[in-house]
Amino acid sequence: MRSDAPKSKGRNLPFDARIRGWLYEQLEPNVWPRKGLSPINILIVGVILLGTFAAILQTEPLVFEGRERLFLTIEISLGIFFATEYLARLWVVTEGPGRNTISKRVGFVFSISGLLDLAIIVATFAPFVTVNLTMLRLVRLLRIVRLAKLGRMSVAIKRLSKAVASRKYELLFTMGLAVTVLVFGATALHLIEGDLQPDKFGSVPRAMWWSVITLTTIGYGDVYPITVLGKVFAALVAVAGIGLIAMPTGILASAFSEAVRHDDNAQTKHTEER
Amino acid sequence: MRSDAPKSKGRNLPFDARIRGWLYEQLEPNVWPRKGLSPINILIVGVILLGTFAAILQTEPLVFEGRERLFLTIEISLGIFFATEYLARLWVVTEGPGRNTISKRVGFVFSISGLLDLAIIVATFAPFVTVNLTMLRLVRLLRIVRLAKLGRMSVAIKRLSKAVASRKYELLFTMGLAVTVLVFGATALHLIEGDLQPDKFGSVPRAMWWSVITLTTIGYGDVYPITVLGKVFAALVAVAGIGLIAMPTGILASAFSEAVRHDDNAQTKHTEER
Amino acid sequence: MRSDAPKSKGRNLPFDARIRGWLYEQLEPNVWPRKGLSPINILIVGVILLGTFAAILQTEPLVFEGRERLFLTIEISLGIFFATEYLARLWVVTEGPGRNTISKRVGFVFSISGLLDLAIIVATFAPFVTVNLTMLRLVRLLRIVRLAKLGRMSVAIKRLSKAVASRKYELLFTMGLAVTVLVFGATALHLIEGDLQPDKFGSVPRAMWWSVITLTTIGYGDVYPITVLGKVFAALVAVAGIGLIAMPTGILASAFSEAVRHDDNAQTKHTEER
Amino acid sequence: MRSDAPKSKGRNLPFDARIRGWLYEQLEPNVWPRKGLSPINILIVGVILLGTFAAILQTEPLVFEGRERLFLTIEISLGIFFATEYLARLWVVTEGPGRNTISKRVGFVFSISGLLDLAIIVATFAPFVTVNLTMLRLVRLLRIVRLAKLGRMSVAIKRLSKAVASRKYELLFTMGLAVTVLVFGATALHLIEGDLQPDKFGSVPRAMWWSVITLTTIGYGDVYPITVLGKVFAALVAVAGIGLIAMPTGILASAFSEAVRHDDNAQTKHTEER
Repeated sequence: MRSDAPKSKGRNLPFDARIRGWLYEQLEPNVWPRKGLSPINILIVGVILLGTFAAILQTEPLVFEGRERLFLTIEISLGIFFATEYLARLWVVTEGPGRNTISKRVGFVFSISGLLDLAIIVATFAPFVTVNLTMLRLVRLLRIVRLAKLGRMSVAIKRLSKAVASRKYELLFTMGLAVTVLVFGATALHLIEGDLQPDKFGSVPRAMWWSVITLTTIGYGDVYPITVLGKVFAALVAVAGIGLIAMPTGILASAFSEAVRHDDNAQTKHTEER
Repeated sequence: MRSDAPKSKGRNLPFDARIRGWLYEQLEPNVWPRKGLSPINILIVGVILLGTFAAILQTEPLVFEGRERLFLTIEISLGIFFATEYLARLWVVTEGPGRNTISKRVGFVFSISGLLDLAIIVATFAPFVTVNLTMLRLVRLLRIVRLAKLGRMSVAIKRLSKAVASRKYELLFTMGLAVTVLVFGATALHLIEGDLQPDKFGSVPRAMWWSVITLTTIGYGDVYPITVLGKVFAALVAVAGIGLIAMPTGILASAFSEAVRHDDNAQTKHTEER
Repeated sequence: MRSDAPKSKGRNLPFDARIRGWLYEQLEPNVWPRKGLSPINILIVGVILLGTFAAILQTEPLVFEGRERLFLTIEISLGIFFATEYLARLWVVTEGPGRNTISKRVGFVFSISGLLDLAIIVATFAPFVTVNLTMLRLVRLLRIVRLAKLGRMSVAIKRLSKAVASRKYELLFTMGLAVTVLVFGATALHLIEGDLQPDKFGSVPRAMWWSVITLTTIGYGDVYPITVLGKVFAALVAVAGIGLIAMPTGILASAFSEAVRHDDNAQTKHTEER
Repeated sequence: MRSDAPKSKGRNLPFDARIRGWLYEQLEPNVWPRKGLSPINILIVGVILLGTFAAILQTEPLVFEGRERLFLTIEISLGIFFATEYLARLWVVTEGPGRNTISKRVGFVFSISGLLDLAIIVATFAPFVTVNLTMLRLVRLLRIVRLAKLGRMSVAIKRLSKAVASRKYELLFTMGLAVTVLVFGATALHLIEGDLQPDKFGSVPRAMWWSVITLTTIGYGDVYPITVLGKVFAALVAVAGIGLIAMPTGILASAFSEAVRHDDNAQTKHTEER
């Protein structure tokens, strides 16, 4: 028997309290006793993905025009769904740790998570109340961020974050190095090709667009040096770019490797001590 | 002496059973007693590669036109070769584990592997029977997938798959992060450059093409921002792209490293226990 | 109590010596007793970043024109700030190890760090004295290099440098391999497409621009092969490029991993020996 | 005292034998008793690099024209230098292991290394004897390959080769996967955009150029999909490309990590056994 089961599991509770306990377990990933996500959270994830997909598609006139009613229906349904979920969360939040019911409710409403939920619901319904603002419709894309809430507690994310945090200084230094190469590369190309291609290398900020696109190895081809000296310097920046990508990759690889090794060692020790 | 040698190795079996046993060993990589692939399987791999190469070349008019007879001969030869192989497999399948000969034969025909083989043979001969469909000719490219069957048992693939599977959640999270950056990058550029370049950033789905090609650092150069603000956001997406490539690479590197370390530890323990 | 505290910490020292001791601790990261940077060094880092940003922005006519007075004020302020810092360092340098006050002052002025500081201060004020030279204004960008001084002592940089140094030969060999592929790729494309695209592949040095931009996977698209044979060779170079990027990344990843593992082992041993 | 010193080190040998012994030690990196390269080998490396640089520059008309005499002098000097080195190697080869002097000399001349040296010398002098062939002049670039001979014995290269060899099957599988994605990506785009852009996607081989340039994330921008479906499939190929680059990088990183770990363990064991 699980001794840390929520108190609502008791059998002699009134019916609404039992429903609330059940719903709390379903909505709160941290108290869900089984592996993975609860059925209701899986549904919520699905609806969030679908809503994000719908929000993306709506911006495309070729898809949206002639299907206004369909998308309107989808948006209203999504709004009702998320409002229901919000109210459900507000109802069950009292099941969480703490004594004062009111303070728990207020705490939920003013938590970052709660405010984000509310903002998304408002953004969903706003277009029907006021004018049809493009910006507001795009706020709905924020729904995708809500997925992080579900995954937040996951061991994987914690491990990744810990690994990245453990190499904070190495990564910062690499970033500093990258910025330095970026600025010097842009300055060099500005000095060399500034007069020849003034719209592209006429100033250091302009040349930095080239610098970023080259160091990240994207290379759109809208800007590139045309003189021999410019090409020589650009080649140096290009090669430096490889190093600047290899460095953080190597650092992260070693950090992830360490994180897992430590976890394993901790487990081994634990086992040996028994 | 190998005690797990197939039963057909016995000397006092009838001639056809001995041939079948020999052929079974040749065709089934898992029962091949020696290292690597059997001679017949090496031949099959060679013919599959040759067939794939021929199927690719045939689509090129400059190569195909004037050489129709040559490619027809190649295709018919390949068809006969694969049909023979299919029948041979159907014949020797009874050597495998299990008692009922019929059920083993039926099992082979309706296995994924068997159906794929049959589909490829049909696709090889179909053009001679019916009209010359481009699609059907390309189905022949599926032959290349058959190579995976031969490699399936390899330790390497198992180790790779295990390593990737062991980091399932980390990789999924990285993917989720990538999709989020993809969507937000596309949305940002759509808002900034949507009016200036409507055909390229006129909607979030359109901007996502730019987003994908930038985050993967491909950068064709068919779409790129032209405003200062657009370039600033694009630079942020570009830098995020480096991180999003470094993350899975690092995760995989650590996973592969772990997989090998565990294998080694297992071996060491095994040796020490003796 | 810290026994290695600088001597100036004594209470019965005259007021100016106590100020100097306090300032020395603030300016010299190595003697700063607490974690991180001292408040004054944080301020200096901030001003360096701001100065670099201002120096970058000034080169852009759209930003600079009409704001000459603003940037003039910024530059003069920066010049005064860095001159003050220089004089302060010159004053407190006597707190450092060594007996002869004069030789410590002279040593500071003629150290690389001191000369760099002086050069940057001269470059900051020069435009107001003589003509407004573009080059001189860009020398101010060198300020960013000063940041390395602050980070120099950091464990992270030491670890990274040690890791890179430990794989010196492997990285050199990879670089040699890259140069060889670069030269042979350029030569191949020069031979194949030299006559067709003389301005792009007309000589090996010209083809090397293509070679660098392809091997680093940047691919601007200003130069690419147009013949079938050229494309086949370019594809080979492209695939080799992947390997040539994967190699150093892998080497660095393993080096970083080792560096941390050794540090951990050293710590573990230390702990066990107690 | 080194007991494995070459026999020529004896003091009572005739003068020419002592010279030959000294020269053998200088020319043969494996018998050089000290760390690094011998002075004469450093000179040879320098001359090879210079010769390669000269050979590259000569192909550029803007550099070559008007400087024919200079490059002629350089080439003749290089030819004499390498011929002298060849003769010196032929003379000292008798110092190597083995009894029969004639067979050692013949063995050197017909070794791959000896034939390569001879070919380069012939290629250096050929233009002066016969017509000025572009091809022959480029053969001189092969000199760069000679550098590998000097590095061959290095621990670094051995470690790298061992690491790569230890993951042979994993790398082969990744390559197989890459080829499969390459072929299927090209086939998909050929089917989707073959009619719209016949010169770019009109056949699978043509589409494979796009496929290679996309999977390697180069993205010249000479070929890219223009339909929505084409872009969707191209995005899938692009994302697959990231994975196909991350895989070998991760495999190599783990292999390099392993190689060093094994070396360390071997050393630790060695130390503990003492």
